[in-house]
Amino acid sequence: MANEKKIKLLNNIQSPDDLRRLNIEQLPELCNELREKIIEEVAVNPGHLASSLGAIEITVGCHYVFDTPEDRLVWDVGHQAYAHKIITGRRDKFYTNRQLNGIKPFPSPLESEYDTFVCGHASNSISAALGMTVASQLTKHSERHVVAVIGDGAMSGGLAFEGLNNVSSKPNDLLIILNDNDMSIDRAVGGMEKYLLTLDTNETYNRLRFRAAQWLRGKGMLNDERRKGIIRLTNALKSALARQQNLFEGMNIRYFGPFDGNDVMEVVRLLKQLKNMKGPKLLHLHTVKGKGFIPAEQSATIWHAPGKFNPQTGQRIVQDTENKSPRFQDVFGETLLELAERNPRIVGVTPAMPTGSSLNIMMEKMPDRTFDVGIAEGHAMTFSAGMAKDGLQPFCSIYSSFAQRAYDNIIHDAAILNLPVVLCLDRAGLVGEDGATHHGAFDLAYLRPIPNTTIASPLDEHELRRMMYTAQLPNNGLFVIRYPRGNGLLTDWRCPLEEITVGKGRKLADITLGNNPRHTIGVLTIGPIGNEASAALRELQIENSLRIIHYDMRFLKPIDEELLREVANECTDIITIEDGVRNGGLGTAVTEWMADNRFHSNITRMGLPDRFIDQGTVNELRALCGIDRESIKNLLKTIASSSI
Amino acid sequence: MANEKKIKLLNNIQSPDDLRRLNIEQLPELCNELREKIIEEVAVNPGHLASSLGAIEITVGCHYVFDTPEDRLVWDVGHQAYAHKIITGRRDKFYTNRQLNGIKPFPSPLESEYDTFVCGHASNSISAALGMTVASQLTKHSERHVVAVIGDGAMSGGLAFEGLNNVSSKPNDLLIILNDNDMSIDRAVGGMEKYLLTLDTNETYNRLRFRAAQWLRGKGMLNDERRKGIIRLTNALKSALARQQNLFEGMNIRYFGPFDGNDVMEVVRLLKQLKNMKGPKLLHLHTVKGKGFIPAEQSATIWHAPGKFNPQTGQRIVQDTENKSPRFQDVFGETLLELAERNPRIVGVTPAMPTGSSLNIMMEKMPDRTFDVGIAEGHAMTFSAGMAKDGLQPFCSIYSSFAQRAYDNIIHDAAILNLPVVLCLDRAGLVGEDGATHHGAFDLAYLRPIPNTTIASPLDEHELRRMMYTAQLPNNGLFVIRYPRGNGLLTDWRCPLEEITVGKGRKLADITLGNNPRHTIGVLTIGPIGNEASAALRELQIENSLRIIHYDMRFLKPIDEELLREVANECTDIITIEDGVRNGGLGTAVTEWMADNRFHSNITRMGLPDRFIDQGTVNELRALCGIDRESIKNLLKTIASSSI
Repeated sequence: MANEKKIKLLNNIQSPDDLRRLNIEQLPELCNELREKIIEEVAVNPGHLASSLGAIEITVGCHYVFDTPEDRLVWDVGHQAYAHKIITGRRDKFYTNRQLNGIKPFPSPLESEYDTFVCGHASNSISAALGMTVASQLTKHSERHVVAVIGDGAMSGGLAFEGLNNVSSKPNDLLIILNDNDMSIDRAVGGMEKYLLTLDTNETYNRLRFRAAQWLRGKGMLNDERRKGIIRLTNALKSALARQQNLFEGMNIRYFGPFDGNDVMEVVRLLKQLKNMKGPKLLHLHTVKGKGFIPAEQSATIWHAPGKFNPQTGQRIVQDTENKSPRFQDVFGETLLELAERNPRIVGVTPAMPTGSSLNIMMEKMPDRTFDVGIAEGHAMTFSAGMAKDGLQPFCSIYSSFAQRAYDNIIHDAAILNLPVVLCLDRAGLVGEDGATHHGAFDLAYLRPIPNTTIASPLDEHELRRMMYTAQLPNNGLFVIRYPRGNGLLTDWRCPLEEITVGKGRKLADITLGNNPRHTIGVLTIGPIGNEASAALRELQIENSLRIIHYDMRFLKPIDEELLREVANECTDIITIEDGVRNGGLGTAVTEWMADNRFHSNITRMGLPDRFIDQGTVNELRALCGIDRESIKNLLKTIASSSI
Repeated sequence: MANEKKIKLLNNIQSPDDLRRLNIEQLPELCNELREKIIEEVAVNPGHLASSLGAIEITVGCHYVFDTPEDRLVWDVGHQAYAHKIITGRRDKFYTNRQLNGIKPFPSPLESEYDTFVCGHASNSISAALGMTVASQLTKHSERHVVAVIGDGAMSGGLAFEGLNNVSSKPNDLLIILNDNDMSIDRAVGGMEKYLLTLDTNETYNRLRFRAAQWLRGKGMLNDERRKGIIRLTNALKSALARQQNLFEGMNIRYFGPFDGNDVMEVVRLLKQLKNMKGPKLLHLHTVKGKGFIPAEQSATIWHAPGKFNPQTGQRIVQDTENKSPRFQDVFGETLLELAERNPRIVGVTPAMPTGSSLNIMMEKMPDRTFDVGIAEGHAMTFSAGMAKDGLQPFCSIYSSFAQRAYDNIIHDAAILNLPVVLCLDRAGLVGEDGATHHGAFDLAYLRPIPNTTIASPLDEHELRRMMYTAQLPNNGLFVIRYPRGNGLLTDWRCPLEEITVGKGRKLADITLGNNPRHTIGVLTIGPIGNEASAALRELQIENSLRIIHYDMRFLKPIDEELLREVANECTDIITIEDGVRNGGLGTAVTEWMADNRFHSNITRMGLPDRFIDQGTVNELRALCGIDRESIKNLLKTIASSSI
């Protein structure tokens, strides 16, 4: 009964048109219903909770005031966009959020006309929205409004700054909403955050100026013709009251704020005031991450993506971790601390992911030797290179797909001088539910062409530890280690830290099924996908006879030429398997080497296909891409039964 | 006699130690001598003139005040660093600047201990220098000073902002010198430039505050213990006099300026004042690009890299352009205007290279449809994607090596939605004298793994026009066209604009030398390097018989599978030739396809080796990398004479 009442409004919202038929007084209730809906859904179908709770009022306000989808609402990082999805026709499918063939994890124009742009990686909204304002003018849609909603964390990214820097370069009416919740996933860091705090202290002046504009509008004076008069007035106010030179105003972007972004009626009033104001402008709203769900308000980092939980009690449903293998990131974090305790040259760097990378383990013990640089992957790499140039041994941990942001920094700032930076690519390969924007699919392919680069990927946690140990030994230069999201295989992971030879792979298995096999298959894997191959070999049941030799390549670069020569001589068929794109990774390197050396074995390259892969569990996606153990078994069977 | 007198001081400067033995009163004369030396040398051995002339006093001032190389002087973009090179032991070799085996075009630690970091791509100095301040503390060199010198153009790059944003995050004494000459290569654009102009208007306050500090220092009061008092004092001054909220001060970076950066004694006095001041600080200096050479002062864009000229008269020695083929960039610029006149959806985007890309041709005629976004490659791409999303057809021109800065923007913001952005990669392949940081070596390899991407490269100017025409037709999505620096081959380049079939190559030649050749060689090329292959075929003289079929692939992606099948069936040997890295480009694509389809021809991949290539003429470097016509001829001969 109570529940029935609670979802009364939301039940009638099929699209923003329905929303716009509500009275403004009904909006707080609708926000409550949205909040409840999101909490209930995310409790059983894990996703990004805290950001979306904080942005509910901004979402409702924007769709209420603007004529979406004709007006363009551009989200920066889709974490915050669950209310947006529910309002824009995906309420009844929301339970499939982040699932295979379900709703995409982040807004995407491929899914809904209300989703105006891709928003998996932070800081791109201002640039994209600015492009849309230009398009609206040149395609004769000059009445269209364009609104970008960007978090304060995303504002630390260089791309956001590049966008801001260009906002006033040609006439446009872009509205930027700064959703300031005082943190990105972990707390935001750096000068911009301090800057935003300073702005807050100038509230009086900003409010006064805004009220003046409101008053004039009330008098019917805020039309275009009088705009210049208003600007003179506000400039005068500015001189008289504060003379504060605001960063945004210095860039010719009118600044309004800060206001309470969790007061939906206030948000609506503000947006109505700003809607038809000419020229670029920024509205600074304060919101509370996790708003309305007490545990999340108190600990927004944990509740960024909390997994399953009890929506009534706020109790997180944490799976039994005893006898469970750790996550790769934790092995990274623990091992880095261990290494740093021995090697005083080691420092750790993360772009806004201390918790996500587990660098926080070292951070707690060695605050002076760890650096969270904010959402700034390019800077993370160049800063690391600068430290390496003057004698330190940085470990820079970046999610693989975000490292695409640092590509030039890797080449220009680290590789040319072969500086000893260890680049740890977390979330490499298929990441599962975060989908197309987040898979670490391209790293092997985009790193291999770079000279002076060592590229390694561990089969398991022990290997990760050995690779990390090896990487920080003197004279190893730029050293990349890629490892996946999620857990490894070993519970007893804390093995001794031992050196492995750079560029050397190893034989994992050499099995013969049946007698006098006609085929000898070399199975060459890199990284943890090798465990799928091992499982396939264990489980394989075939009628024909077959010899299979399984090699863990360990290194993509330098590639183990001795091993490849052995493979070429021993094997009639070669299968390469990698958790990355087929074009340019291990399979390519093996194929090139065989061709260069005039070996003509049959090579089958298993890897990700040449298309973007959507969300699903890692196992579902592996099957979809043909790199799961069933696919491996099937290929082995096919080869075994073939005549040539 | 006059000349003898003029170079008296510089003759005795073997290193900054010698410089530091001069009296401060001698420095203006030394700057004059440096100016003369640079003008005379660059007049006969072309290089970057205007920036280096403007930065002479900053250079002399820094080396005079700081204890280089123990103190770290980090240049942002090596354009400005000629005086630095001359002072730091490279005076007598300066005539080899930018030449094969000569002095590197940009400062490099591989050449001199005075060169602290790589500085070919803009905006990296603050991040690298910040890394060095951390290293100085953790490696017990806490007395070391670190100074970054960054231009106002470079300040528009997102990386510079990410660096600034982090400068105050941990205690350090970094000094950033903002060399503000009011332009990058062309004029700087965007909010940051406007912001710097605003700062100028507040000169009175800044000078007053600085004088106060000087006065206190004169009284012996500016020691560390009293620093807090000073800060209180300056804050009070701030309140009393201006209340200006400076961007840099808002980020907790103390700001001083603007001052005259071409007054060397003033620069020295300023640097001495700031040298031992604690905490991060920014010194804003105004300089004149081309300072001291009137023609360059008047037209700094032309004199950025003017080619040869008469140092007395300022007359540029322009080569006779009649009967000469145009530069690829001009064909791009003219053709884009032609297309834009027909297709109203076309817009043009350049990150700070209107002249360098020849987008200025369209810019003059269509200022509303062209966008110079400043040094901001990432934004250039995402902004283009935003425009494409809402119905426009952007042509975004970026130098190939700088496009590495936009890698994630290409993947995340354009490719996922397959948006119709035409990405024109100028300066692709070997660029010659600009060296390791500027070769467009990696583009084919880093673009090929990206789904939804068409990658083309024209053999000549006609093909460039056809590809540009084809790229802007509906439904062609993300379309990359790469073309090199410099001139093409055709004088009569303005051919009709005709569509070519995406993904189809063409046969250029099929020649048989001698009778019943044992070998049929398929020569597969992409881009203008194909002309080297054509020349090699024309010039080839061999004893054995041989059939050679030359294909211009036109497209790396999608690759022409029908053509490859024909090659596989007809040819005993395959040679691929490309002006890009061997790992991952055309040769790789062909090798993969042959292996996938179980063809076993001998394949030889010619391309750039797996190391960074230094400066030289394009022809010298091609020979060095084995992709010149002699190397091609030699390979053909070797295959012809081989038994298998």
